Amino acid sequence: MTTPIRYEFIKTCKQTGARLGRVHTPHGTFDTPTFMPVGTLATVKTMSPEELQDMNANIILSNTYHLWLRPGEDIIREAGGLHKFMNWDGAILTDSGGFQVFSLSDMREIKEEGVHFRNHLSGEKLFLSPERAMQIQNALGSDIMMAFDECPPYPATYDYMKASVERTSRWAERCLQAHERKDVQGLFGIIQGGEYEELRKQSAQDLVSLDFPGYAVGGLSVGEPKDVMNRVLEFTTPLMPTNKPRYLMGVGSPDSLIDGAIRGIDMFDCVLPTRIARNGTCMTSNGRLVVRNAKYARDFSPIDENCDCHVCKNYTRAYIRHLIKCNETYGFRLTTYHNLYFLLKLMEQVRNAIREDRLGDFREAFFEQYGLNQPNAKNF
Amino acid sequence: MTTPIRYEFIKTCKQTGARLGRVHTPHGTFDTPTFMPVGTLATVKTMSPEELQDMNANIILSNTYHLWLRPGEDIIREAGGLHKFMNWDGAILTDSGGFQVFSLSDMREIKEEGVHFRNHLSGEKLFLSPERAMQIQNALGSDIMMAFDECPPYPATYDYMKASVERTSRWAERCLQAHERKDVQGLFGIIQGGEYEELRKQSAQDLVSLDFPGYAVGGLSVGEPKDVMNRVLEFTTPLMPTNKPRYLMGVGSPDSLIDGAIRGIDMFDCVLPTRIARNGTCMTSNGRLVVRNAKYARDFSPIDENCDCHVCKNYTRAYIRHLIKCNETYGFRLTTYHNLYFLLKLMEQVRNAIREDRLGDFREAFFEQYGLNQPNAKNF
Ligand SMILES: [Zn+2]
Ligand SMILES: [Zn+2]
Repeated sequence: MTTPIRYEFIKTCKQTGARLGRVHTPHGTFDTPTFMPVGTLATVKTMSPEELQDMNANIILSNTYHLWLRPGEDIIREAGGLHKFMNWDGAILTDSGGFQVFSLSDMREIKEEGVHFRNHLSGEKLFLSPERAMQIQNALGSDIMMAFDECPPYPATYDYMKASVERTSRWAERCLQAHERKDVQGLFGIIQGGEYEELRKQSAQDLVSLDFPGYAVGGLSVGEPKDVMNRVLEFTTPLMPTNKPRYLMGVGSPDSLIDGAIRGIDMFDCVLPTRIARNGTCMTSNGRLVVRNAKYARDFSPIDENCDCHVCKNYTRAYIRHLIKCNETYGFRLTTYHNLYFLLKLMEQVRNAIREDRLGDFREAFFEQYGLNQPNAKNF
Repeated sequence: MTTPIRYEFIKTCKQTGARLGRVHTPHGTFDTPTFMPVGTLATVKTMSPEELQDMNANIILSNTYHLWLRPGEDIIREAGGLHKFMNWDGAILTDSGGFQVFSLSDMREIKEEGVHFRNHLSGEKLFLSPERAMQIQNALGSDIMMAFDECPPYPATYDYMKASVERTSRWAERCLQAHERKDVQGLFGIIQGGEYEELRKQSAQDLVSLDFPGYAVGGLSVGEPKDVMNRVLEFTTPLMPTNKPRYLMGVGSPDSLIDGAIRGIDMFDCVLPTRIARNGTCMTSNGRLVVRNAKYARDFSPIDENCDCHVCKNYTRAYIRHLIKCNETYGFRLTTYHNLYFLLKLMEQVRNAIREDRLGDFREAFFEQYGLNQPNAKNF
């Protein structure tokens, strides 16, 4: 299949099997494993494109469902596509809208043709289908589009999941056929199947036979324990082509990024770092730090003394706490910047460790310092 | 009096009498006439210090009352002062807290010793006096401090105003005595007197005799018509020393900045440009533009085609409208940046016009293009 998305494999980590690579897109390349900041409504909340570039974000994710509702894909098409609309020159991945249809709307009806549901803002009746999801993403002009899939609830029975996987495969084929800009946008398939190895196998076989330029693992990070996620990855990634990028959807806690990379994942996205930032919680080399807590009122040290980001070089916990307590936007800018920088830096450290065949050692040291080895550890 | 604030007079505009000058402070110099962005809670809402520098803001204003309540002046003193606390290396002017005591609190009792009132956030009983206002501003470490004055309501009777002016003069003397860091912070006096020429004269004489390094005109922009403000300025600025800066408090609409400069004012501040920005309203060379309006949904031109700011060079009305409609912080960043840039650029144009003895011509052309000459024109 013609595609503008190309995966360049560099090496595997001898200690863990993690992959080092690079993905080429119409809007530049990015090194993998990588983390993609989420820009739901054509903006990574509080951040400028220049700040994202500063922290070495080369690809961001944006949400088809949200942009479809506001401002509508027509306006973005008329603007010249999402890159121009939001003044972002790097790569963009858009999801299919499926996840939001299943998570935000409680009035939905799944049929073979697609999903009928209600707008979570206005209550208006809407319909999303493989064809419509492609049409919207073609209008947005993202570098990487995602196939429209069903995201089944967790847990789901084997029978429900089997029917869902089969429908998702039929929908994937319809997506391929509906995709009208194959020369400038790449379409990824999404492997579903919950925790059932049989169904993951069936889903992977179906989708791999359709020859997408990349594949995602969907239906994880939906409430299942971490060891279930890791086990599913262990039997799913070997089913995925080695010459194409592998994307684990909705994962952004430091431990899961490392553990996903070890299981052969190349790309991750999650709202976690930006969402907790707006609540005054930071990721640091010594674990999570709730900077809005009273104990930081007179703490004139940086968020993370081991971080070399612009925020940690120039601002104190006391100042950031003050801003956040006063609901000042600039406080959220500072915590958001630091958290994204922290995760992007973590992925750089992961890539360096793969290059030097020591990702296992890196994992041990990181988990220890972050406090993940402690009983009842919070994982972000 | 020893003072670190020095006014350097350059020239007057032959066409209007406006002054071109420069003010030297412990944190750099700024050219006058100038506009000071307001950073109420130790942040100019949504903006970074780097962005303020980019737009040539060399002095900002911060509010003593708000910082006293949150985070408290002790924390800022411990941080090494307000400059360090907020990572701003330029000059800072702090008001005295008086204005907020009179405008935010409805339970207040004015006595000779000071003002008893209630915290507008918690209802807690508080007391502010000349001595306390100096103590707080000394802790903040602003380059320019303001004397604690009474801000009488508008309109006020002659008798009320006369008593108030006399008390403000006595308070000014107490401020001078209480100010403990005269070598590194300059204290400005505030001339009151409402629209009564006699009382402005009395207030100016009292304060000029105390030899402050700069003087403000207070009690304007409190609801009076523009022609009243202009008339008061016409008989007040001649009462002020020519070798010291003159500051008109709380004024930020483009017409009043120009008209104030023409009447000999050097410094202005106002929340107007930042406040209206957060409501989706922009100042442009062709007048105000409410970018959140539906008619801009598909308008891919910049906020102001004649503006060369970073926002106007990179973003469209359609994108900014989308962000603001979605309540996205980045939208408020963009409108705030543009509005502040617009006013700072306007002041640069005013200075250039003074230098070339054509501020009267500039005023005419600006008013015409901005729409200020139209009947019922909005002035921002
Ligand atoms: Zn940092
Ligand atoms: Zn502009």
